[in-house]
Amino acid sequence: MSSAGTFSVQYEFTADSLSDAEQTADEIALEQTAELPLEAVPTELQYLIGKSSHLVQLSDKRFSCSIVYSKHVAGNDILQFLNVMFGNVSIKPNIKITDIDPGACEDLFAGSSFGIDGIRKLLSVTDRALSCTALKPVGSSPEALADIAMKATLGGIDVIKDDHGLANQESATFRARIEHCVKAIRNAEQTSGKKTLYFPNITSRFEELMNRAELAEELGADGLLISPQLTGLSVLDTLAHSSIDLPVMAHPAFSGPYTINQNSGIAPDIYFGKLWRALGADAVIYPNSGGRFSYSIEECKSINSRCRESFYDFKPIFPVPGGGISRESVSEWNKEYGNDTVFLIGGSLYLHPEGMETAVREFQETLLGE
Amino acid sequence: MSSAGTFSVQYEFTADSLSDAEQTADEIALEQTAELPLEAVPTELQYLIGKSSHLVQLSDKRFSCSIVYSKHVAGNDILQFLNVMFGNVSIKPNIKITDIDPGACEDLFAGSSFGIDGIRKLLSVTDRALSCTALKPVGSSPEALADIAMKATLGGIDVIKDDHGLANQESATFRARIEHCVKAIRNAEQTSGKKTLYFPNITSRFEELMNRAELAEELGADGLLISPQLTGLSVLDTLAHSSIDLPVMAHPAFSGPYTINQNSGIAPDIYFGKLWRALGADAVIYPNSGGRFSYSIEECKSINSRCRESFYDFKPIFPVPGGGISRESVSEWNKEYGNDTVFLIGGSLYLHPEGMETAVREFQETLLGE
Repeated sequence: MSSAGTFSVQYEFTADSLSDAEQTADEIALEQTAELPLEAVPTELQYLIGKSSHLVQLSDKRFSCSIVYSKHVAGNDILQFLNVMFGNVSIKPNIKITDIDPGACEDLFAGSSFGIDGIRKLLSVTDRALSCTALKPVGSSPEALADIAMKATLGGIDVIKDDHGLANQESATFRARIEHCVKAIRNAEQTSGKKTLYFPNITSRFEELMNRAELAEELGADGLLISPQLTGLSVLDTLAHSSIDLPVMAHPAFSGPYTINQNSGIAPDIYFGKLWRALGADAVIYPNSGGRFSYSIEECKSINSRCRESFYDFKPIFPVPGGGISRESVSEWNKEYGNDTVFLIGGSLYLHPEGMETAVREFQETLLGE
Repeated sequence: MSSAGTFSVQYEFTADSLSDAEQTADEIALEQTAELPLEAVPTELQYLIGKSSHLVQLSDKRFSCSIVYSKHVAGNDILQFLNVMFGNVSIKPNIKITDIDPGACEDLFAGSSFGIDGIRKLLSVTDRALSCTALKPVGSSPEALADIAMKATLGGIDVIKDDHGLANQESATFRARIEHCVKAIRNAEQTSGKKTLYFPNITSRFEELMNRAELAEELGADGLLISPQLTGLSVLDTLAHSSIDLPVMAHPAFSGPYTINQNSGIAPDIYFGKLWRALGADAVIYPNSGGRFSYSIEECKSINSRCRESFYDFKPIFPVPGGGISRESVSEWNKEYGNDTVFLIGGSLYLHPEGMETAVREFQETLLGE
């Protein structure tokens, strides 16, 4: 916990010796606040310079420290919080954020509106992992996408999301897509006898995104998909604070540079499981280990923990591992990751020889332990 | 140039052999479009899958290729263009964008409204490099910031920008800061006999940012500063398309992860000099070589070239090297980088024993070759 009136960020960095590391920690603290040589900072403002603490040597050349910042430097602005956290030092080599504590800035963060409990309530499912698939590929007509949505719903899927590449292309404009898919899903629910949630992708420039969010709600969608690193991270916060009463699933598109490098960027569990969670996501998709992306199983399990653990008053949210999960492997992943997980399967369902409905039925039976 | 109806992206990546490289190129093309195994993509939609071309072996394990994409996949959405360009593959290890060609998507990009010529016209300066400094540090009162602005204006500075950490803190709210600084600069111009442009920082969540942009214009500011990687990149586009008639200077805060890694992310010249330029920045600040950041001099010169070279109908824009430039070294940097450059000096001016006015006067004399 940070002390009164402060927040803190833990950085890992490279240095040649302990004394070099002390200097680097002080340089980070100065860079992120005054951004002037110390001797040029008026004495009466030096209390606003970040304070380095907890310097630890992790290995021969790697060190860790916490920098404690005054909340006055972030003020009342969530983007200025992010700027203090990582603005300029993001450009310096070999500095990585390994933890954040919003401390006195907790109230700058909306937190999620629905979280795990809220999404479970929409589905009336309390005790098992959830299933999710994506409508694809780009270029499909609204009718073709609605046909996939219908079959997945008949199979009993919990959540259907748009592919994050479905925007407002001529092949399936936003309105036509949502109208067709909502209708198909609501009809098929009559047969399946269970709820299926639909999360259309609203990622776009801000004004258009907000229009699409309102339209999605009006047309009966159950949630929203956005790619926060494309829209700007504050959009998560804006949606969480808005009157739109739908859960938000966040997609990692364009976020790779922050999270795939060993010695720079932001640790994936902190980025997805603390930052996106605090900003307001109700579920975060992340690239699962063993698929076509690059996280280790330890990193994935740590993302899961961060999504669910106690973290101020922020609601626990769903981790959504995706990429490289198949009908065959999902049972093992469920044992590994536990039930407070949404499993996102794409290609493996589309490739089922008997089609999407059967594929989803088998997926669903696996999660039900049947 | 891309062929009709397409745009293209050049990727560099790691592979064990030429045949592995061919496979990786095809995987990128599929990932960024259909995002399904090839056999799951309906035959009639396979024409929308990216096409790999120009595969070249760069070194033992590094390869380069261009992927040509149909403009229909990007549709009419600038963020979907960015998503196709780099969405999912940004999360894969060791893939780097080394060039982009907007091709048939050129008209998705606003380009800059002012550019080099427009900013020069505001200053009536045609034939030399421009000087710039930043108002700091955070925590200063509006009066204290205005005092620095006054002294820099008396010294003859061309451009004053806010520190990118000045938001709306209690110590200097946005309105109070702009009012005081504009007044101080306009008064001091009467003595200096030359124009000084003031670019306040408007970085904030979208609606607040647009309010601040309008307020800045109303209060007589001459330009705007934003950190696009904090606001979301489409804000550059929105500002360029808006009725707000002020040039935009873009700051690299929070963008480091995209541009500091050798084998991943986006090459800095492409990121700052092509992408931010096409999106609508009139000037781009980048961390200069030899200072406290990490670019090589070759990377910096390449950013400069990309900002200025012919690139569709987009206006050439000012590169703004900052960080580690001093009063003493600026003359050499001017020779190295040429006159279509804005030199941003912070610390070295603040440290001048005779104060900001004298420091700026010497800076200005250097650029005038006196």
